[in-house]
Amino acid sequence: MSLSPAVSLTRDLIRCPSVTPQDAGALDIVERTLEAVGFETHRLVFTEAGTPDVDNLFAKIGAGAPHLVFAGHTDVVPTGDVARWSCDPFAGEIIDGKIIGRGASDMKGGIAAFMAATLAYIERHGAPKKGAISFLITGDEEGPSINGTVKMLDWAKARGEKFDHAIVGEPTNVSALGDTIKIGRRGSLNGKIRVLGKQGHVAYPHRADNPVPVIARIVAALSAHEFDRGTAHFDRTNLEVSSIDVGNPAVNVIPAEARAQFNVRFNDAWTLETLRARIAEVVKEAAAGARIELEFLPSNAVSFITHPGDFTELVSNAVTAATGLTPELSTSGGTSDARFITRDCPVVEFGLTNETIHAVDENARVADIDALAAVYLRILETYFVS
Amino acid sequence: MSLSPAVSLTRDLIRCPSVTPQDAGALDIVERTLEAVGFETHRLVFTEAGTPDVDNLFAKIGAGAPHLVFAGHTDVVPTGDVARWSCDPFAGEIIDGKIIGRGASDMKGGIAAFMAATLAYIERHGAPKKGAISFLITGDEEGPSINGTVKMLDWAKARGEKFDHAIVGEPTNVSALGDTIKIGRRGSLNGKIRVLGKQGHVAYPHRADNPVPVIARIVAALSAHEFDRGTAHFDRTNLEVSSIDVGNPAVNVIPAEARAQFNVRFNDAWTLETLRARIAEVVKEAAAGARIELEFLPSNAVSFITHPGDFTELVSNAVTAATGLTPELSTSGGTSDARFITRDCPVVEFGLTNETIHAVDENARVADIDALAAVYLRILETYFVS
Repeated sequence: MSLSPAVSLTRDLIRCPSVTPQDAGALDIVERTLEAVGFETHRLVFTEAGTPDVDNLFAKIGAGAPHLVFAGHTDVVPTGDVARWSCDPFAGEIIDGKIIGRGASDMKGGIAAFMAATLAYIERHGAPKKGAISFLITGDEEGPSINGTVKMLDWAKARGEKFDHAIVGEPTNVSALGDTIKIGRRGSLNGKIRVLGKQGHVAYPHRADNPVPVIARIVAALSAHEFDRGTAHFDRTNLEVSSIDVGNPAVNVIPAEARAQFNVRFNDAWTLETLRARIAEVVKEAAAGARIELEFLPSNAVSFITHPGDFTELVSNAVTAATGLTPELSTSGGTSDARFITRDCPVVEFGLTNETIHAVDENARVADIDALAAVYLRILETYFVS
Repeated sequence: MSLSPAVSLTRDLIRCPSVTPQDAGALDIVERTLEAVGFETHRLVFTEAGTPDVDNLFAKIGAGAPHLVFAGHTDVVPTGDVARWSCDPFAGEIIDGKIIGRGASDMKGGIAAFMAATLAYIERHGAPKKGAISFLITGDEEGPSINGTVKMLDWAKARGEKFDHAIVGEPTNVSALGDTIKIGRRGSLNGKIRVLGKQGHVAYPHRADNPVPVIARIVAALSAHEFDRGTAHFDRTNLEVSSIDVGNPAVNVIPAEARAQFNVRFNDAWTLETLRARIAEVVKEAAAGARIELEFLPSNAVSFITHPGDFTELVSNAVTAATGLTPELSTSGGTSDARFITRDCPVVEFGLTNETIHAVDENARVADIDALAAVYLRILETYFVS
């Protein structure tokens, strides 16, 4: 069976077991493929105490503006129990029109499609006469996200690179290729609450101070609080308390302390400051004078939006031309490295479907990978030629 | 220094390190002391799978009615860190008018005072001409309470004993000997709640079902619920949630399950059945359709009351005559073996003060022990002579 360039490159990448922070040869494939058509490449190993060293790749062809950067990652999440997979998660087997393997959708298929589109573009048109195409590929998206995209952006800025637009190839579609473009992401904030009471015997509650009803009131209030009703492009801000813990085995003892932890996914109605202030207000009111400690963990994920306009329309039209679908411009779901890139230029995300990502038997439809390459090619042609 | 019989017997008992379920010679002291003045004694070792064997003592003098039983326990709670005590907790040292030792107030001092009172009564009046005095002394009050008072009462009933009134020598006074008689106790019920949700990622809450807000609502509702406003002789029913536990370390994961445990101290407005039904109602309403499991642990502590009348007045007058104080007739605090005795006859509790019980440097004022013996003697004289 003869494979298309995009599917063949996807299989080559899957065959590198690049479980974060391992690279396992994945970046070499991207580097060699791009060098072969004239890209200048830079391998960038970043280090930071307490985190693994990570290998990254920056590749560029052309010069000046407009400068379109394709961003993504070659690292993948672990396989989990390999015995539960239908086949070797690092073999890239194709069964019933689907290529199976860890990273097939998230996001080796996306990187392969962008490479195939770029190769096709250069074959037809040569390197951009005016402007540049870059690849900003990290091996640290599924890890701590410390030695990857952020440091590459800093490195690129330091050497004078200026990006005009970015496309992140994360799997954005819900069930069919073309149903969803992501034009932003909600922010994420983690926090902890501690209620300090006074230990005692349940038969003498007036001599004790039970922190459990207080933490229950706070958690109930935070969970029921309406932060907003959504904004033009975002779902409503949502807070989930993910644990309450007291750890008191004795049913007749009033405990001294109770703890809870929560996460908020927040939209563009909030900054980290206004959000923290609102949470503190809700907690304080529910605490009703009880002794509490509220702590927010450091957050590097504020919400961002690439407002609908020429660039989102260009991407959207390319998707419709290649798939026949009119994509939703969405901001839902988790975070991605797009939250870092948005500091430097408008960024839009479009890739494969996300039905099987992080799961056993992760896969991508072969036809989707080729269609994605067609979308990317159309974007390049519209961006640089027309 | 010459010690009174009550204080001397208290010291002898403290010198037996009878940490539950050990007896360490304590019951021998009581048995020999009572045999010497004519009591018939029975040592009763009860056993039950899963609990320690426990030695108990039943002693009786006289026959027929009225039959007054003095009930109590010779076992004590552990000392905790002995280094934190001012002196050996099993030496019975007397310092500044206080005898220091584990069990001094709870309740070796009470048992010693009742023995001293009984000896004095028999010396003055001989054994009761009409009626009987019994001692029902267990070594299982601070333990599981399985092989003690309940089985002794069954044993006594089987051999035809009929008790008319009981005095339990537990430390009932708050700060001064004579301030409090207990004429009843609240009941105690333990329960557990489990909320079943569905695990998921915090960024996709619509695909999950978070049990944490549900358990928080339930705990807040139960903690705020007004069961009653107290009754003629009882404080209000009170529920304390002593733990909530989820045990989810991942702040970005919605957990599958949340658990809580609670204890209720309830008054005579409730039976176990009506109380369980009310709790189930409050839980169900707060759960608002969520999947929950509510489980009640077996309870052997319903509330009971010895209604004020001739017997409580007899005890109260004896307290006033010996101490000058008018005792409050209280039903507050924890449970005691009086909850078992109430099935067979009216029971009243009066003993030393409870300021230092279960604590480091537990002690009893020497003058209090003698005054308590005087109260008991006056009770015996009023009960049998006048």
